Amino acid sequence: MRYVYFFGEGNRDMKAALGGKGAGLHEMTRIGIPVPPGFTITTDTCVYYFKHGDKLPEGLKREVEDAQRRLEGRMEKKFGDLDNPLLVSVRSGARVSMPGMMDTILNLGLNKNTVKGLIKNTGNERFAYDCYRRLIDMYGNVVMAISHGEFEEALAKLKKEKGAKLDSELSSEALRELTEIYENIIKRHGKTFPEDPFGQLWGAIGAVFKSWNNERAKEYRRLNNISDDWGTACNVQSMVFGNMGEDSMTGVAFTRNPATGENVFYGEWLQNAQGEDVVAGIRTPHPLSKAERGMSDSSLASLEEMFPDTYGELSGIRDKLENHYRDVQDIEFTMEKGKLFILQTRTGKRTPLAAVKIAVDMTDEKLISKEEAIMRVDPRDIDLLLHPMVDPYAKVEVISRGLPASPGAATGKVVFSSEDAVRMKEKGEGCILVRIETSPEDIKGMASAEGILTQRGGMTSHAAVVARGMGKPCIAGCESINIDYARKLFKKGDCTIKEGDVITIDGATGRVMEGDVKKIKASLTGEFGRLLSFADEVRRLGVKTNADTPNDAKTARDFGCEGIGLCRTEHMFFGGERIKAVREMIVAETREEREKALAKILPMQREDFKGIFRVMDGLPVIIRTLDPPLHEFLPKGPKAIEELAKEMNVEPAVIEEKARALSETNPMLGHRGCRLGITYPEITEMQVRAIFEAACDVTREGKKVIPEVMIPLVGSKIELENQRKVVEKVAEEVMKERGVKINYMVGTMIELPRAALTAGEIAEIADFFSYGTNDLTQTTFGFSRDDVAKILDSYIENGILNYDPFQTLDERGVGELIKIGLERGKKTNPKLEVGICGEHGGDPKSIDFCERVGLDYVSCSPYRVPTARLAAAQAKIRNSRK
Amino acid sequence: MRYVYFFGEGNRDMKAALGGKGAGLHEMTRIGIPVPPGFTITTDTCVYYFKHGDKLPEGLKREVEDAQRRLEGRMEKKFGDLDNPLLVSVRSGARVSMPGMMDTILNLGLNKNTVKGLIKNTGNERFAYDCYRRLIDMYGNVVMAISHGEFEEALAKLKKEKGAKLDSELSSEALRELTEIYENIIKRHGKTFPEDPFGQLWGAIGAVFKSWNNERAKEYRRLNNISDDWGTACNVQSMVFGNMGEDSMTGVAFTRNPATGENVFYGEWLQNAQGEDVVAGIRTPHPLSKAERGMSDSSLASLEEMFPDTYGELSGIRDKLENHYRDVQDIEFTMEKGKLFILQTRTGKRTPLAAVKIAVDMTDEKLISKEEAIMRVDPRDIDLLLHPMVDPYAKVEVISRGLPASPGAATGKVVFSSEDAVRMKEKGEGCILVRIETSPEDIKGMASAEGILTQRGGMTSHAAVVARGMGKPCIAGCESINIDYARKLFKKGDCTIKEGDVITIDGATGRVMEGDVKKIKASLTGEFGRLLSFADEVRRLGVKTNADTPNDAKTARDFGCEGIGLCRTEHMFFGGERIKAVREMIVAETREEREKALAKILPMQREDFKGIFRVMDGLPVIIRTLDPPLHEFLPKGPKAIEELAKEMNVEPAVIEEKARALSETNPMLGHRGCRLGITYPEITEMQVRAIFEAACDVTREGKKVIPEVMIPLVGSKIELENQRKVVEKVAEEVMKERGVKINYMVGTMIELPRAALTAGEIAEIADFFSYGTNDLTQTTFGFSRDDVAKILDSYIENGILNYDPFQTLDERGVGELIKIGLERGKKTNPKLEVGICGEHGGDPKSIDFCERVGLDYVSCSPYRVPTARLAAAQAKIRNSRK
Repeated sequence: MRYVYFFGEGNRDMKAALGGKGAGLHEMTRIGIPVPPGFTITTDTCVYYFKHGDKLPEGLKREVEDAQRRLEGRMEKKFGDLDNPLLVSVRSGARVSMPGMMDTILNLGLNKNTVKGLIKNTGNERFAYDCYRRLIDMYGNVVMAISHGEFEEALAKLKKEKGAKLDSELSSEALRELTEIYENIIKRHGKTFPEDPFGQLWGAIGAVFKSWNNERAKEYRRLNNISDDWGTACNVQSMVFGNMGEDSMTGVAFTRNPATGENVFYGEWLQNAQGEDVVAGIRTPHPLSKAERGMSDSSLASLEEMFPDTYGELSGIRDKLENHYRDVQDIEFTMEKGKLFILQTRTGKRTPLAAVKIAVDMTDEKLISKEEAIMRVDPRDIDLLLHPMVDPYAKVEVISRGLPASPGAATGKVVFSSEDAVRMKEKGEGCILVRIETSPEDIKGMASAEGILTQRGGMTSHAAVVARGMGKPCIAGCESINIDYARKLFKKGDCTIKEGDVITIDGATGRVMEGDVKKIKASLTGEFGRLLSFADEVRRLGVKTNADTPNDAKTARDFGCEGIGLCRTEHMFFGGERIKAVREMIVAETREEREKALAKILPMQREDFKGIFRVMDGLPVIIRTLDPPLHEFLPKGPKAIEELAKEMNVEPAVIEEKARALSETNPMLGHRGCRLGITYPEITEMQVRAIFEAACDVTREGKKVIPEVMIPLVGSKIELENQRKVVEKVAEEVMKERGVKINYMVGTMIELPRAALTAGEIAEIADFFSYGTNDLTQTTFGFSRDDVAKILDSYIENGILNYDPFQTLDERGVGELIKIGLERGKKTNPKLEVGICGEHGGDPKSIDFCERVGLDYVSCSPYRVPTARLAAAQAKIRNSRK
Repeated sequence: MRYVYFFGEGNRDMKAALGGKGAGLHEMTRIGIPVPPGFTITTDTCVYYFKHGDKLPEGLKREVEDAQRRLEGRMEKKFGDLDNPLLVSVRSGARVSMPGMMDTILNLGLNKNTVKGLIKNTGNERFAYDCYRRLIDMYGNVVMAISHGEFEEALAKLKKEKGAKLDSELSSEALRELTEIYENIIKRHGKTFPEDPFGQLWGAIGAVFKSWNNERAKEYRRLNNISDDWGTACNVQSMVFGNMGEDSMTGVAFTRNPATGENVFYGEWLQNAQGEDVVAGIRTPHPLSKAERGMSDSSLASLEEMFPDTYGELSGIRDKLENHYRDVQDIEFTMEKGKLFILQTRTGKRTPLAAVKIAVDMTDEKLISKEEAIMRVDPRDIDLLLHPMVDPYAKVEVISRGLPASPGAATGKVVFSSEDAVRMKEKGEGCILVRIETSPEDIKGMASAEGILTQRGGMTSHAAVVARGMGKPCIAGCESINIDYARKLFKKGDCTIKEGDVITIDGATGRVMEGDVKKIKASLTGEFGRLLSFADEVRRLGVKTNADTPNDAKTARDFGCEGIGLCRTEHMFFGGERIKAVREMIVAETREEREKALAKILPMQREDFKGIFRVMDGLPVIIRTLDPPLHEFLPKGPKAIEELAKEMNVEPAVIEEKARALSETNPMLGHRGCRLGITYPEITEMQVRAIFEAACDVTREGKKVIPEVMIPLVGSKIELENQRKVVEKVAEEVMKERGVKINYMVGTMIELPRAALTAGEIAEIADFFSYGTNDLTQTTFGFSRDDVAKILDSYIENGILNYDPFQTLDERGVGELIKIGLERGKKTNPKLEVGICGEHGGDPKSIDFCERVGLDYVSCSPYRVPTARLAAAQAKIRNSRK
């Protein structure tokens, strides 16, 4: 087993062993990008470390020492040398990027003696002591678990003593003094900062491995479904310094704009600084190019202006990397005394908006195929694009303007701490988390907020990167506001915003606005539309929608649905006059009374259906007959019952008695679905009449109506048979009355295990099946959706489930029933159309399953239609590759 | 297609075409039994009749006329002949016997003219007119739907006029007058009694077919699961007369005692009477033999005494028939002027007690094999044998004594009408239905009563036959009581029993007793035990029991169970001090508090298990960990909550809050089963500790303990894994503490569809599966057992279900899951033991399924163990034949 790879010995395909960062460094070295030399300790070493009670493997010491020798040779410096000391960084790097989650230590190799060599070598005593004091700080913090705050406090105290405002105002002597103060802090904790460079190195390697299991890394992995078993690699790399004077700088860049996807080189840098300074958001960095500077209206000079040659070299590297990786790269670079180094490259995270544009642009640039473009966009992100944006015509009071760090508009009450954000979320109130800057400790708060606003930090600051990952609106580096945590407010000029005040942030433009600003629905923009049309070319699965109103139907049709897969009629039973008639029907004692009440509902239902049929002109509409138990329509509580009694001119006792008679121990398994239609055929009759009267009328208007009647909660062929007869009888009646002939189908929900198991028989008389995977999940697991939250939480926490089966289809259980039902159904009725209309119809993972087992279509809520179109295409590509 | 078969042309195997009665007549004719000649119109003719709007098929007329000619030849009489007229009966006869449900008409062929021929031929004018008036009465009633009451009224009026008390006191002239009165009654209804004999015949055939669909026949078929599609055959047979004078008689007999099974010839007869007189129970018939007369303490002379030769001939026929049919026969016979005819033979209905004795006796007599004996007893009847009997040592106040018509003891309030019986049943109160005699209209009332007592009628009266069929205690012919319907009371001497008074009847001895008499449990009597030992020799399926207490375990062991298949521990949580501790545990906020409360329950649970282990010495005991949701243990209602709060020294609000937090919309799908044990491992720990402490202690007593721990409501392998770990940890701990080594198994309930579907994985870590078919039926159908009654009723009524799936296993749905789970489970774990422990484990049909699919055992309630043993043997025989 080999533990160590020198840069260039590995390549991009070795992410599992070398981590993402490592693989990038090896690959870059291989293709001639100027990378500071170094080596990678594999992720397996980390796994070994944890498996053996935090012990490093036997052979590692020798391999690291050999690699270190080789590094010394390459750099012509020596680790621990008094004259020309080699300094290294030790960085974590997992298989997938976990930004800021794990630890890094820089400047290893410095001690009281080697610092002299660094001074001699650089002629910069101030720089050398600054490096030294940073090493002690980081080492104390990362390896010895001493709070960074203690070092910061000491620094602040010293600055005060010396009358310095900025760190850079401290003299080299003061910084030397600081190293002693820092070492004393460590001593106070009963520890000693190791003088021996190899001692430092091994401490750092162990700490990096250990940081794989720190709390925030674990939380991040849990949120992002990353396996705990992978471990991190550890990169030991010779240091280059962006803080070696005015001819040094450091920065980060994206090969394209990660927020918008525009094909412009995009980044930030700071002169005479270390990389941490850029990412931490402590100083606001400079823009990379002149164009970028204009865009963000920055007064800070661009790299292009200040170091045109370096900018040119960097631009060349940008092209080389993007062509090599055929995707947007996220690059870290440093210039040490005029010499440019690339410290890292990785696939650039991007906003969903950018992802779409980049994918389509790269197709146009012939860099990638349409199929690759389809695979480049995470369908889970698609619906973010459909989230509201600030109405361009809205009159807004702009308080301030920051960096447009993550797009989307959000409104909420201002809070100033993550704890408050979590609390607000629990209360069900939306909030905007306002922080000077964010840190990994803020992840839960950010997840709870509608949006994030920070005073400091750039487009690659913690806040920006995390918010984009979460798909939340974020404005970063809004320097013109002043946050006062103690008084819980922020100011901009005369304007004061206190905790609890409502603001709106627009992550697409960087505007911070007072109050709740009007937002608009997204439409399918050019690239978005093109990407979805790529998807439509590829996918096999049909995409329908679940829509109960003409409005929803319109939205879904605009989003490209191919019909309505589920139109629930019960929602039409609520509201105004209807609910009264519905309640009359429920309280009725005889069929005649019930029919009288139903007759009142009929014209209203007919109008509902007419609206929907008009919108869906030419597309099929599956309408489900009444599903919920009748008691859901009765009022709850004595007051509401009394009111209803008065309205209906009966004694309250009558309604109470009815409610009692209808109440059920387990309503989910009760008198609902087709059981209602069988007990009260007049309900089905009324609904079918409304459907067909509407269909006939709208057909006469010259539209094409394709109605399909769906019977819910069927468990046996004979139930469907019973309801099918009612449908056919009434449909024929109405068509005869209206003199219109309409082609229609009758099908059934498959939402009970028994329906799936006896699908062979049921299919004999069904034109279509639609899997109701919500109910099917309930009965297959024996989980009541209304009650299961607590159990699910504890199950997910205990690792008994690793997903919510109501979000993502349970393939082994529910999926097995789907397969059984599909197979048996198609066997007896090869023309049977089979789809799915539960929540899962819009979930990409579940859609992948639907593709694999060969369903005909998925049906999902209107806003998930684009997601489903893309996910269906990806599923097709993924599964035809196999 | 052939519609008509002359007696002897068909045989016993043609029941489907000729009906049971017809097939018997053909077979008897074939083997030389003296049967009055006749012919059968097939059941297909009846089916044709209904399918074609009550029209008889084309060719029938000719076939009937031909057969009639042939009959005339055989009888040397002519249909409609004025000198020597042939008279026939027309009787229904379905594939299975439906006693008294359909119609019969006798004496067809008589009219004003032919009656003269009959007089001439018999020299008995009175007899001739009696026949004639009976024909008009029956014809008017059956064919013309005129109430029999109208004719009866007229008869009563005439008797009053003539000063006659008995029918037999009316002169022939009076009877002739009666025929005219009867014909006028028919005229009053706008109809005419047909003079033409063939007109009479066709009217009668149509009426017999029609009677297949009368209300009481339909109700009977529904109760007895007889198909509506079969139709009835129609037997046309030459009349013989038991009422032709003192040398004529008619009777019915069983080849063995149908109540006790004793191998004695058993029957009843009436001199100078028609068959209807015996069955209708209007006159109390005479016993057949001297022995029988002694048994029933009758003062009436036996056939053996009065007609020893005829008795001898009949005895010979008895032997011939029983040897031919190899089963007990139920015979109708008539002697016309000294000549004996057999009118019918069919398999004799018998009490369960008799069925067992007959089956075992016939095995001893080498008449049938053990396997045949096993198949002869309906396992559904077995538990009737286990029902309580009157304690022989109980001090009883005997009011009266009647015929022991159907065994078993029953207690209830006296009611005098079927309507009252139904009403009492609805109120949940047990009643004894007391009637002068019963008629088919009383079926519902009889079904609602605990037992039936009639003043008139014999062992083969309507009340007796129906009660035996229903397995209800019945005393018939209790002539010494006087029933007064108007005042709702009955008297015996000084004793008056009013409506609502409690009496006890003992159907085994015929005693009617005052009050609620002490009853005892049945034990396995000699023949019963032998039959079950035959079953044990044959069956493959194991039979275990569901028992939660040492008492139940003892009962089941006495009944021959082979272990406990399900010991529910939750029942142990109720009662006295325990429920307090359980509630403490539920209200506890921390694990520590919960453990404290559980520690109080531990010693009590341990004692429960010790009791059970002692009883089950040497047999395996499957113990299920806690299953129901915790809220089931909390008190309901404010008062109970307040009391508990006081007891626990907390605010009522605390308990209310807990109850609210625990309440669930669908508790059936809620926080229960292994979900409890996963959330609160300390509950499982306590239970496992109690099990293993008990097992160790009882082992030390020298008993063999085989504990098996069963985890409920598992839906995935990982849930079982979680709980299995807890079981193993605690079991090892306890065994170490106690220094005892015990072999044990850990298995799971399969009661969720997902468990069956993923059984392959689950079986990897399960030692056994036990199908919880109650819950599995709930989730497979989406039926809540608590709510489903209304739906099931309406479904069964509408023919959507033809059985209650909670009683009889649904093979297509639930059964499919059982097959899937079994197959997948045994595939990954061939040693897996698989059984069933729902209610279905004691249902013979479901047991047949278990045999067919290859389960290892069934587990049922203690009282169903004998049923299950027999049903398992029958299933084995039935399915190895195929």
